[in-house]
Amino acid sequence: MNRQVRLKSRPTGTPTPDNFEMAEAAMPEGDVVRRTLFLSLDPYMRGRMSDGPSYATPVAVGDPMCGHTVSQVVSSRNPDFRVGDFVTGYDGWQQFGASSGKDLRKLDPSLAPISTAIGVLGMPGMTAYVGLLDIGQPKAGETVVVSAASGAVGAVVGQLAKIKGCRAVGVAGSADKCRYVVEELGFDACINYGGAVQAAVFRVLNKGARIPLCGMISEYNATSNTPGPNLRPLLVNRAMIKGFIVSDHIDRAPAFFQEVAPLVKAGRIKFREDIVDGLENAPSAFIGLLEGKNFGKLIIRVAN
Amino acid sequence: MNRQVRLKSRPTGTPTPDNFEMAEAAMPEGDVVRRTLFLSLDPYMRGRMSDGPSYATPVAVGDPMCGHTVSQVVSSRNPDFRVGDFVTGYDGWQQFGASSGKDLRKLDPSLAPISTAIGVLGMPGMTAYVGLLDIGQPKAGETVVVSAASGAVGAVVGQLAKIKGCRAVGVAGSADKCRYVVEELGFDACINYGGAVQAAVFRVLNKGARIPLCGMISEYNATSNTPGPNLRPLLVNRAMIKGFIVSDHIDRAPAFFQEVAPLVKAGRIKFREDIVDGLENAPSAFIGLLEGKNFGKLIIRVAN
Repeated sequence: MNRQVRLKSRPTGTPTPDNFEMAEAAMPEGDVVRRTLFLSLDPYMRGRMSDGPSYATPVAVGDPMCGHTVSQVVSSRNPDFRVGDFVTGYDGWQQFGASSGKDLRKLDPSLAPISTAIGVLGMPGMTAYVGLLDIGQPKAGETVVVSAASGAVGAVVGQLAKIKGCRAVGVAGSADKCRYVVEELGFDACINYGGAVQAAVFRVLNKGARIPLCGMISEYNATSNTPGPNLRPLLVNRAMIKGFIVSDHIDRAPAFFQEVAPLVKAGRIKFREDIVDGLENAPSAFIGLLEGKNFGKLIIRVAN
Repeated sequence: MNRQVRLKSRPTGTPTPDNFEMAEAAMPEGDVVRRTLFLSLDPYMRGRMSDGPSYATPVAVGDPMCGHTVSQVVSSRNPDFRVGDFVTGYDGWQQFGASSGKDLRKLDPSLAPISTAIGVLGMPGMTAYVGLLDIGQPKAGETVVVSAASGAVGAVVGQLAKIKGCRAVGVAGSADKCRYVVEELGFDACINYGGAVQAAVFRVLNKGARIPLCGMISEYNATSNTPGPNLRPLLVNRAMIKGFIVSDHIDRAPAFFQEVAPLVKAGRIKFREDIVDGLENAPSAFIGLLEGKNFGKLIIRVAN
């Protein structure tokens, strides 16, 4: 028999043990049958328990919970896999998995402990790698701030940042974790947080900061929207917000004039001016501008 | 004499007429003296009235307010400028300006009305150009949503978007403005908003959305922080947030393994596993994970 942990009901807010149930299923069948040795638990699984919009389909109620696994092959009709081979796959919260084998990657236990295939050398490690290097594009000498710094992703982010010549500052949830982050992982500093990390970090952003957003664990159990702009849609939709100040882009002025001036002259880009006469009327016109009272580009005619 | 509008006091919240004062100064002196014809009023000026941290130094109390201007030269000792020339500069809220002339750009009134130098062919137009094309990188067929669509920046964003083959949807603050945006400017649609635009847009972001952030007019008069994450520091610091899902970046897996696996093997990237024995303990371990109770990568040992 194949013991499983199934999703029994969808949680409201924080999951409780009642949302899960242990059950037994028949042994699964397929070309490659394997026994689960290690199951990864990851924050994203909270999203799969709900049926709201996300980037992946939810686990159906009654199905075993999903998850990355490290397993050992117990039977195989696929020449690529032999009994006893260690593999990593996505078999979920159960004792056995079966498939054609296409969804498996064979592990070499001499290269690294096999459990690392679902950790530092698995999805969490690769999240750290892509998020730091591809999305964040760190330059040597920059400071990399890492939330959940002792976690599976954060620990790799900070260590990679150090290897790339950056200063690494962790944020973690206990004195023990902070000590580990600094003393074992080699971060330059770690802050034991007691409040809203995101808001605190936003207040001290550097110019040109990049914030790769791979998860929002503190909001996963929320039952109502966070007040104010909620950034979770940015995550789900792989969206990007970038602040910019036009004066930083003065090198684009020639291209701008070359492209837009003829469009204006040809009437293909129209413009509307909201002209107010008299310098003495500038204050009231400006106050109205902040309330949206103008209609078109607000201009004071100071003289004719 | 040179009439000026000076910053008399710094506003708390919405500026009032009392924050400004009309005054007279001596005629300014310099190689090129010019009379202001048009003064641009722009939302960013609210930032200059306060002395909080921003991307530019504030106007000093007692100084004339700053601003882009279109002027006519009244005297010149600089061979590049002749009396009667039209120029654009940054002379602020006053009747006359003077300088060496290095800060001026000469205008050709036959190319476009001179007032456009502080509008569609000035800083607002270039903000639209850089924000849409360089930051937003629109592709033909995509939908471009433009807040403040009838304003000096938004009107250009939407029209440029149409020219680039995109669908343009405006958001503006009155039925009149919306009609203008659709009927005159040629946007595909315009929404007359009655609430928080940013939150509404966040709820319907498309995958891979880009949000160029060039201003936050609705918050400029706020006296307290918006509840929840406040995006204004993103603007001030030209910062970027980008959500990502690691499964979109599977092409990076070979690079990840090639770079990180040797680092793990060499002990340069350390890892810590928080191993819980027994599949039946997965639910409680997972609930603890969402509360930060694990320390290191959380793994269930399902079998030995």
